[in-house]
Amino acid sequence: MQFFKMHALGNNYVFVDTARTTLPTDDLPSLARRVSDVRRGIGSDGLILVTPSDSADVGMRIWNADGSEAESCGNGLRCVARYAYERGLVDATHFSIETKAGVVAAQVHLDVEGRVRLVTIDMGEARFGTEAVPYRGADRGEDVRVEAGGARYTGTLVSMGNPHFVTLVDRVDDVDVERVGRVIESHPDFPERVNVEFVSVLAPDEIDFRVYERGSGVTFACGTGACASVAALAKKGLVRNRVTVHLLGGDLDIEIRDDGHVWMTGEAHWVCEGTYYA
Amino acid sequence: MQFFKMHALGNNYVFVDTARTTLPTDDLPSLARRVSDVRRGIGSDGLILVTPSDSADVGMRIWNADGSEAESCGNGLRCVARYAYERGLVDATHFSIETKAGVVAAQVHLDVEGRVRLVTIDMGEARFGTEAVPYRGADRGEDVRVEAGGARYTGTLVSMGNPHFVTLVDRVDDVDVERVGRVIESHPDFPERVNVEFVSVLAPDEIDFRVYERGSGVTFACGTGACASVAALAKKGLVRNRVTVHLLGGDLDIEIRDDGHVWMTGEAHWVCEGTYYA
Repeated sequence: MQFFKMHALGNNYVFVDTARTTLPTDDLPSLARRVSDVRRGIGSDGLILVTPSDSADVGMRIWNADGSEAESCGNGLRCVARYAYERGLVDATHFSIETKAGVVAAQVHLDVEGRVRLVTIDMGEARFGTEAVPYRGADRGEDVRVEAGGARYTGTLVSMGNPHFVTLVDRVDDVDVERVGRVIESHPDFPERVNVEFVSVLAPDEIDFRVYERGSGVTFACGTGACASVAALAKKGLVRNRVTVHLLGGDLDIEIRDDGHVWMTGEAHWVCEGTYYA
Repeated sequence: MQFFKMHALGNNYVFVDTARTTLPTDDLPSLARRVSDVRRGIGSDGLILVTPSDSADVGMRIWNADGSEAESCGNGLRCVARYAYERGLVDATHFSIETKAGVVAAQVHLDVEGRVRLVTIDMGEARFGTEAVPYRGADRGEDVRVEAGGARYTGTLVSMGNPHFVTLVDRVDDVDVERVGRVIESHPDFPERVNVEFVSVLAPDEIDFRVYERGSGVTFACGTGACASVAALAKKGLVRNRVTVHLLGGDLDIEIRDDGHVWMTGEAHWVCEGTYYA
């Protein structure tokens, strides 16, 4: 089977272009587990299939390293967009990608040699508050309070398709993200659990960001979390509508456009490509 | 840079055949760290260069994932042997491999299609006791006693080039290898620390094996540890001179030949090969 590996902010996947190679099995959860296992396989956060699509220019499906299927992934989408453009699956710099969560718009930005330098993805609209995020607590509206480790955290509830709790802190490096994030993520007020973002405003167009991802723990990058955080802070007037977000794994540029959609711009990197012996 | 990845009992390496591709840098510790990093690189336990050799049929050098250079590695040697035979670097099934620790003999065993099914490596002579392993305690001879976690463990000191403490237990699954192994590994009686093996005899030709590797902790496989264990047990007459060793990562066949050399036979597996974008 032909494969390639790419990463975006350290979030790394093994990719297979189904139009160019034959999958060794129909059991994709098992294939995802095997290629992701660094000991006996290649090593990755999961498997992404790049597929033909009836409703968009290119399609993608994603399985996590444990074999579960994910709906979408901003970091994975940027990699797919770079691959699709550089390998001629699309011939324009603006195109569409079909995911399990719907069709999204992508744009690639080229360097002087025609390679993809950055990728912008339409991450959709942010929705706010207890109407948008499954929540069982006593508060109503955009902001809710949660007790964690003896302290009380006030956060903005944001849905980017998945649920987020965005909480403003003075310095993200002063937060024990692992400990506090875990308590909030699994707090009984959130029946479907929640992604927990700790953010601090460095300037009207620059924020620091740390995340405890639902089901994954502390990670180096979470695209929807960066989008949710800028959306929450912009709505409160604490930042402008275009912000550089400093994540542990690198930077993302987040823009809230006039139609309310959140556009995410960042890098995507080639690691290797070749033949996998199943 | 062209690369390939193989594993033996789950011990996995990125390999580069220096006769077939150009290294992107002379800084091999840095290259080892980068290719081994699963987030932004391929993902592996380290980097192995397959090189021409003046003193043997083929040469190898090995760097761990942290960039430190290792002298040799039984699992890596089996992979190099499979590669060298299947890709025509050698044309006989018996050949020699130069390592930083010296030249070793290798033999490949083929399946009906001419592929390498198993690899045998001459792991050299076992040496025993306080003469062979750096030891500061009060005991003398082959066996020494060590206190760990309130209990006393008697083990045989064996050198296979590196130091081992082989201790016989009723059932390896009853041992807290992580906890007890760590204490013995760093015990003040062992000024250069020690690899700690827990073994139980299932039959005269079959043993169970768990290891706490010096500097690495609990690992799935340790070739020199399996050799040291069989050498220690055979010397006491507890097993025959040819034994199947069950490690966490799979089986090894260990044979003490008449000249005192320990020969290790096991599998080596292809994972993938292709181009790495440095």
